Amino acid sequence: LPSKLPAVGTTIFTVMSKLAADTGALNLSQGFPNFNTDARLLDLVDKAMRQGHNQYAPMPGVPVLREAIARKTSEVYGVDYHPDFEVTVTTGATEAIFAAITTVVRPGDEVIIFEPAYDSYVPAIELNGGTPVYVTMTPPDYAPDWTQVREKITDRTRLVIVNTPQNPTGRVWTADDLTQLADLVRDRDIYLVADEVYEHIVFDGRAYHSLMSHPTLQERTFICGSFGKTFHTTGWKIGYCLAPKELTAEFRKIHQFVTFSVMTPMQVALAEYLQEPEHYLSLSAFYQRKRDLFAEILAASRFRFKLAEGTFFQTVSYAAITDEPDYDLAIRLTHEIGVASIPVSVFYHNLDDYRILRFCFAKDDEMLLRAGERLIKL
Amino acid sequence: LPSKLPAVGTTIFTVMSKLAADTGALNLSQGFPNFNTDARLLDLVDKAMRQGHNQYAPMPGVPVLREAIARKTSEVYGVDYHPDFEVTVTTGATEAIFAAITTVVRPGDEVIIFEPAYDSYVPAIELNGGTPVYVTMTPPDYAPDWTQVREKITDRTRLVIVNTPQNPTGRVWTADDLTQLADLVRDRDIYLVADEVYEHIVFDGRAYHSLMSHPTLQERTFICGSFGKTFHTTGWKIGYCLAPKELTAEFRKIHQFVTFSVMTPMQVALAEYLQEPEHYLSLSAFYQRKRDLFAEILAASRFRFKLAEGTFFQTVSYAAITDEPDYDLAIRLTHEIGVASIPVSVFYHNLDDYRILRFCFAKDDEMLLRAGERLIKL
Ligand SMILES: CSCCC(=O)C(=O)O
Ligand SMILES: CSCCC(=O)C(=O)O
Repeated sequence: LPSKLPAVGTTIFTVMSKLAADTGALNLSQGFPNFNTDARLLDLVDKAMRQGHNQYAPMPGVPVLREAIARKTSEVYGVDYHPDFEVTVTTGATEAIFAAITTVVRPGDEVIIFEPAYDSYVPAIELNGGTPVYVTMTPPDYAPDWTQVREKITDRTRLVIVNTPQNPTGRVWTADDLTQLADLVRDRDIYLVADEVYEHIVFDGRAYHSLMSHPTLQERTFICGSFGKTFHTTGWKIGYCLAPKELTAEFRKIHQFVTFSVMTPMQVALAEYLQEPEHYLSLSAFYQRKRDLFAEILAASRFRFKLAEGTFFQTVSYAAITDEPDYDLAIRLTHEIGVASIPVSVFYHNLDDYRILRFCFAKDDEMLLRAGERLIKL
Repeated sequence: LPSKLPAVGTTIFTVMSKLAADTGALNLSQGFPNFNTDARLLDLVDKAMRQGHNQYAPMPGVPVLREAIARKTSEVYGVDYHPDFEVTVTTGATEAIFAAITTVVRPGDEVIIFEPAYDSYVPAIELNGGTPVYVTMTPPDYAPDWTQVREKITDRTRLVIVNTPQNPTGRVWTADDLTQLADLVRDRDIYLVADEVYEHIVFDGRAYHSLMSHPTLQERTFICGSFGKTFHTTGWKIGYCLAPKELTAEFRKIHQFVTFSVMTPMQVALAEYLQEPEHYLSLSAFYQRKRDLFAEILAASRFRFKLAEGTFFQTVSYAAITDEPDYDLAIRLTHEIGVASIPVSVFYHNLDDYRILRFCFAKDDEMLLRAGERLIKL
């Protein structure tokens, strides 16, 4: 059977998490918390199951959950998107991103991607016959270069994929970034996919600018969100796509035949849990404390870094320590000091290596302290 | 935004379930039970969540669940497929079918489908640039016509989609059907997708022939299974794909970027529940009793039917009652007598109307009795 995705091998997340498990290393590689979900949310799932919410949800999602997501979005971003926008509940942001790309991209289309980039965008583009066009962002700022973007837009550009707060760099797009993007797409037939799964993890009182909050952008954007990062449930795979009605109509035709619908009891539970906004409004402070704890320890190390602006990832430069390729170093540190990380080169299509590692700090304090102690010895 | 699937409208399942809800009709249309899941399985989910199984499952599925599915398959079909076959856990059989089709089909490929056919096959083929080629099955037997299949196979045929026990017809493929298929594909470069979600619902002591049990077929087949129909959890969307290692490697590249992984706590719970084979071994008897109950009442009606051989659907001819188109009748019966069904014409690409309705008998006895009472008055 000839491969539809010949370039795809085992993902770095699987490689590093397996290596961490095999060696007993502290796993700061794949992005997931090592602590459990709020018992209140688990209680709500249990209640929903006992009440019989175990059969097909409506294809676009359970209505109370779609309304709760709509309300949250309106409140958090101060936008009223009713009645022109619609929520579709998906199997995690992964399915939302896959379905949004599939909705738009056809053979011959070009799609602009900012790299270092999360690894699911390119395969989805290629399966639809599109061509990824890369805009490179570099440390320590990882700011999008708008001259570069302008140069790369052509008549065949059909989609731009935006990720803010950005994985792996921790950068949060500024209001100016949104304005620049809006100026470039305004008069063109270009759609946007916004991967905003870290929307509730933004630090230092920084304003977060969802593409939803920008009039020119919102009308052509598929906002992809998720509860995995927000409620410490990465294994539940419950996300959503928020988009204008017309785009939603086409998006749902894809969703319907990719998965049809999403785990019912968790949808019912999340709808109730979302009635208590403190669960997501407290998240930035929760993770900022963890970022700071980890950064305080690393301050005594030879790693150099700028504090993450958002997400639960901290990237660090190890150029002052060694000149090894980042992939080799990530493997070696797992074996030798028992700390697993992600080499950032894997997020560049040409494996550009700026000697940067990514650590996930969604871990309990004890694990962060133990990892820090090991890292400062380098 | 030009549509990638211009022909797709609202699915019949959504239309009929909504109409049933709006009118208060007994909903025998969309295929799902109106009774709840076994409390023991819900207990196991609750336990898994409390134990912390809420983060990413491994991309191919939780190992204990994959092993349990492998063991079940070996035991039920008397085949030992280790170590050459692999299980991948998916978001329901829908994702398994979508990913399997996406793994194989490229622009220009032809895919043979037996109709009346479930509605997700054709959009998945078309999104991948393939062309569906239809083999027509007709009431009352709905037997595949092998002369017709032979005529429709060309050099461009790349995939055949098989569904047994078959939705909507309730037919179960015979050993001879499998031999006929094997003879046709043996020396050709043709793959198979087998939608076997009703594998544990087969009546009257009939032998069930999974494509897994046939040597020539198993080596080229993506078996798509699901726990939704088997454990009364259609809303959980937990299914799987079982395929030879080489095919699995390509299948997982698609699965990885479509959804990445599947709801962790339910996987853990299902692995334990599968240790008790009575849960699936008792299912045929459970549904045979319901089929017979429903059929006994309908015997007093003017509907004419052959008993379903498998699935939880009974198709009936209403030709002796009225000459209305089946779609119109399904709508009218929902409004006038308060029983919702599915018109079988929607499962034919040209809407061939043989005056057949499909009723789902996965309902408690009281609902079946009440529906029967209303239907015998026609
Ligand atoms: C789907 S596994 C990857 C999790 C993640 O988002 C990350 O580690 O970047
Ligand atoms: C995914 S909704 C359709 C359920 C079903 O399998 C059927 O009713 O045929």
